[in-house]
Amino acid sequence: MEHFSDRLLNAIGLKGSPVCVGIDPVHERLPAELRRRIDGPRSALSAISEYCSTVLDAVADAVPAVKFQSACFERFRDEGVETLYGLIADANDLGLIVILDAKRGDIGISADHYAAGIFEPWIDRDELAPRIAIPDAVTINGYLGSDGIAPFCTNGRGAFVLVRTSNPGGDAIQQARLENGKTVAEHVAGVVDQLSREHMGTLGYSDLGAVVGATKRDEIASLRALMPRCIFLVPGYGAQGAGADDVKECFNRDGRGAIITASRSVIFAYEKDESQPWADAVGEAAHVFAQEVGEIAPV
Amino acid sequence: MEHFSDRLLNAIGLKGSPVCVGIDPVHERLPAELRRRIDGPRSALSAISEYCSTVLDAVADAVPAVKFQSACFERFRDEGVETLYGLIADANDLGLIVILDAKRGDIGISADHYAAGIFEPWIDRDELAPRIAIPDAVTINGYLGSDGIAPFCTNGRGAFVLVRTSNPGGDAIQQARLENGKTVAEHVAGVVDQLSREHMGTLGYSDLGAVVGATKRDEIASLRALMPRCIFLVPGYGAQGAGADDVKECFNRDGRGAIITASRSVIFAYEKDESQPWADAVGEAAHVFAQEVGEIAPV
Repeated sequence: MEHFSDRLLNAIGLKGSPVCVGIDPVHERLPAELRRRIDGPRSALSAISEYCSTVLDAVADAVPAVKFQSACFERFRDEGVETLYGLIADANDLGLIVILDAKRGDIGISADHYAAGIFEPWIDRDELAPRIAIPDAVTINGYLGSDGIAPFCTNGRGAFVLVRTSNPGGDAIQQARLENGKTVAEHVAGVVDQLSREHMGTLGYSDLGAVVGATKRDEIASLRALMPRCIFLVPGYGAQGAGADDVKECFNRDGRGAIITASRSVIFAYEKDESQPWADAVGEAAHVFAQEVGEIAPV
Repeated sequence: MEHFSDRLLNAIGLKGSPVCVGIDPVHERLPAELRRRIDGPRSALSAISEYCSTVLDAVADAVPAVKFQSACFERFRDEGVETLYGLIADANDLGLIVILDAKRGDIGISADHYAAGIFEPWIDRDELAPRIAIPDAVTINGYLGSDGIAPFCTNGRGAFVLVRTSNPGGDAIQQARLENGKTVAEHVAGVVDQLSREHMGTLGYSDLGAVVGATKRDEIASLRALMPRCIFLVPGYGAQGAGADDVKECFNRDGRGAIITASRSVIFAYEKDESQPWADAVGEAAHVFAQEVGEIAPV
């Protein structure tokens, strides 16, 4: 199969902007017309499913990729996981690159199991009309080292390792300084860089990328230099406070090397804009986001 | 609800040994009579379900706790998750303490979602005969810092943070030395120790524990001193090569403070002992394991 990095870069070229919409649904923030129907966990999940399906349709023209927050679905256990893979099948059908934000991380055969669970074709319970759902990439936690990373980056699938997260609490561990002067995040970046060379696509980027929070502006240039072949998945844009200026350094000189993610500012855009149907507000926010980022990273 | 640490310590006292059986099923290693029935993913999952249910019955007399490897079930996506929670309900019914080895880790509302998905009562699809399944504790990855840890340690539930893992690849990150002379693992231990004080049970231990691999014998005493109130969940016993001598230092002077885990050496014990029915071999291996560890940590 074609390399993940090639597929992602080609999709970015096609849509004209290196952006990704984060699908992080919470039932409390759904549009009123959907929220009204909720009277328990099952109806909440069904409303979330319908909402996400409409959001995917609304953003598919504007952006090359979506990122599903697995936790929002896993909170409904097996039924949430079934809904998640149904939506991934929708996104596959729309030609979107699909990143599963699951932050998995294990070793040996357990890592193989997670990778198989995520990347092997899924057949839904309705065997008369089976649908295929396969994410293109997954986020993983690299604290267990290279044997916790490599299994997720095989057969043309991609993985983004958490290197520098956007939350305040991350500093206590990721900013700790080693005796060689590097931070722990920079040290993890070195491990990721090393492994990234073994998974190169044809366009000069690796199938192994890194999560680097947009809110950590001062550290981005250093991480960019440490992982030259890695595509950065950059959360923190929009609702978390970072803007176009903050993410400039995530890109290499070729204008490539990063995909910027916005979630709440796009998928809940109707909360601030009640002038039009809610799906139109979401679609418009996705277009504005793609245009903003497209201006700093022309492709 | 009663504190997780109190429930665990009381269960250990009742069974007489601080041990835990790891439920890490793989269909290739099931007993021949079950393996014979497998002709695809669904029949593999059904065989795994029957096998695990029998294993739980076989070990319940000997050990106070079991640890489910979530990956083994998640590889079957939603149907695997449904099976997993059905088995957790079985273990709950048998009075076993249940640890879910899911190595989750996220922040903010996503961490809340994961915690809710794991710890809120689960109602299965058969609404006419609903079963309740609730794990007592979960393993988590602490790379995101305290805001990625705290949400998993609430309402009497417990969490074990990965501090020092048993795999070779973990060294590259966890053994890196900080400018203050500590290793990264020791630094993470400090973060865990700090948080552990906010979640104390009545028996002197915290609901927040740590995963410390039995194969890292030289580092255990230092980690024990750094996290005096944390119960260590200790994998690596048996199949991974560590024995009773290696895990001695995991215990405090009160004979408490650790729970030792063995998986393959117990649950696949019939591979080496074909003289009796497979479930009897598993039960016997669990008793031998409990006795071995019980001798070094009399309770």
